[in-house]
Amino acid sequence: MKFELEIKNNRRIGVIKTAHGDIHTPAFMPVGTAATVKAMLPENVASTGAEIILGNTYHLMLRPGAERIAKLGGLHKFMNWNKPILTDSGGFQVMSLAKLRKITEEGVEFQSHIDGSKHMLTPERSMEIQHLLGSTITMSFDECTPYPATWEEAKKSMEMSMRWAERSKKAYQNRKGYGLFGIVQGGIYPDLRKASIEALADIGFDGYAIGGLAVGEGQEVMFKVLDEIMPFMPENAPRYLMGVGKPDDIIGAVERGVDMFDCVLPTRNARNGQIFTSEGVVNIANSKYADDNSPIDANTSAPTKDYSKAYLHHLHKSNEILACMLATWQNLQYYQDMMRKLRSV
Amino acid sequence: MKFELEIKNNRRIGVIKTAHGDIHTPAFMPVGTAATVKAMLPENVASTGAEIILGNTYHLMLRPGAERIAKLGGLHKFMNWNKPILTDSGGFQVMSLAKLRKITEEGVEFQSHIDGSKHMLTPERSMEIQHLLGSTITMSFDECTPYPATWEEAKKSMEMSMRWAERSKKAYQNRKGYGLFGIVQGGIYPDLRKASIEALADIGFDGYAIGGLAVGEGQEVMFKVLDEIMPFMPENAPRYLMGVGKPDDIIGAVERGVDMFDCVLPTRNARNGQIFTSEGVVNIANSKYADDNSPIDANTSAPTKDYSKAYLHHLHKSNEILACMLATWQNLQYYQDMMRKLRSV
Repeated sequence: MKFELEIKNNRRIGVIKTAHGDIHTPAFMPVGTAATVKAMLPENVASTGAEIILGNTYHLMLRPGAERIAKLGGLHKFMNWNKPILTDSGGFQVMSLAKLRKITEEGVEFQSHIDGSKHMLTPERSMEIQHLLGSTITMSFDECTPYPATWEEAKKSMEMSMRWAERSKKAYQNRKGYGLFGIVQGGIYPDLRKASIEALADIGFDGYAIGGLAVGEGQEVMFKVLDEIMPFMPENAPRYLMGVGKPDDIIGAVERGVDMFDCVLPTRNARNGQIFTSEGVVNIANSKYADDNSPIDANTSAPTKDYSKAYLHHLHKSNEILACMLATWQNLQYYQDMMRKLRSV
Repeated sequence: MKFELEIKNNRRIGVIKTAHGDIHTPAFMPVGTAATVKAMLPENVASTGAEIILGNTYHLMLRPGAERIAKLGGLHKFMNWNKPILTDSGGFQVMSLAKLRKITEEGVEFQSHIDGSKHMLTPERSMEIQHLLGSTITMSFDECTPYPATWEEAKKSMEMSMRWAERSKKAYQNRKGYGLFGIVQGGIYPDLRKASIEALADIGFDGYAIGGLAVGEGQEVMFKVLDEIMPFMPENAPRYLMGVGKPDDIIGAVERGVDMFDCVLPTRNARNGQIFTSEGVVNIANSKYADDNSPIDANTSAPTKDYSKAYLHHLHKSNEILACMLATWQNLQYYQDMMRKLRSV
């Protein structure tokens, strides 16, 4: 995996060269939780300009299972997406979704939210699963430090994540055009974040993610942490802010030197009727749209230019699947158009 | 509206010329109940070969409302479908979906299944609604005779439908390239069916539908009724068998001289996991497909050729919207391919 970077007008403009194609940065990765970006055909995800999507290790290991996906030819073939895929390590979702989780130095024991079955995730197993999936970019296994956390709690959690990062690196099977990212932890404490960055740089990764943000601390605190830690981040590797975010979160983070993002927001909110348009946010459930014959977005290249707000309002009120389809397409197009603009400096 | 018909190898092969384009017959009309063929973009419905879809007067009058759709430019514009649309009269769905319905000579009083609000459908109001929607083909308002019904019941019901047909014709506002169909009733009684056909032919319609079949009588009885009544149907007008059906129902009815069909079966069953493929019916929920890497249908022109049965099984088990999208596309393509074959004699 190679990263080519230039600084244009004070902005990091890059391209990550992978076995599955190029990723132009700053990049936004739509989330394809269960091997599908919900309500979208993969060819339509690509048509919005997305060059990489994110898959969730936790969901895929439980259903349909990593060994099964490997036997079926890997995640790319399984979901008919031939561009890059980044998979998370499962750590974050185990903490937030699984039942009865127990964290030890070895890893995390948990029960599936689907059927209550027992599982264990360790750095080694997470690497194995992501390898079975055929992920273009593998994330090291970490503990997402909860917010709020005291300095002592954040330190203890971060240090275990660094030991897990080392075990992840050791277990990772490198292949040409693939890569492994480390994840910076340390809560909102600059000294811990700095120590985490140094520990990861010592181990050596193809990219560096910032974890443990966008977990309730708010935009102001998040930007403050970014301002404090960015000077210490390795210059010539992609920087990925996990789970972010709203459009202005992304714009602010790009201005602070972040290269990659993922978030369920454009897809999940689409299904709830929140539509991002070139003329602002539209909450399509609002009855004021019932008679609004203007296009969902007159300035989009998505098919939503051909449908009225009144129609989408009707579909949404009627719980029609097409409401999710059109709204998701619109929001993903909006996000990719925003990233294109952020790259055109 | 014009109908050009030729008999090739004993089969009726035709084309209905309308203000919104040609409909090649025998034709299958996907059902777009609430101004959407569920889980499909209209351009993808068209890509399967569908040249006409069906809209439901009952659903649309309740939500978003016929006057509203008219104000927004008509149903074609509202749902972004510029080919022909046939709307039913609302009669059948009022009987089967609405609450507390009361049938009189005047029409049907009923309560909405959505909010319990009171409404009245008469032949005149049904014509008005379908006119407001801008339907290419309007159906006359009828009572769908329940099955089973005695000869006396079927006669009484049919005779009222014939009076309603006359009122429908009188209320219908004709325009060039649009048309009005009458609906034959009479239950399973050949003499009543024949009387119904004669009554409709006297009034004069652009096409003749066969109502009151596919309501529980079974294929054998349905084919028997078709065999008995087809010789009396006007030769040079389209014949439409309402609400039919399974592939072999359609094939048998085409062999008996029917030109048009509609049914929710391919779309509804798709959402329940029943997939029609060139190699037979696949119930995708069956766990035997969990590891089946063969395409959903290797011989389709739908995108489902690029996705495995294992993947669709996974999506279906995970309640993913994409399961409905792919399955619906596959089934609609299957139905349109079947119609194309039936036209190629």
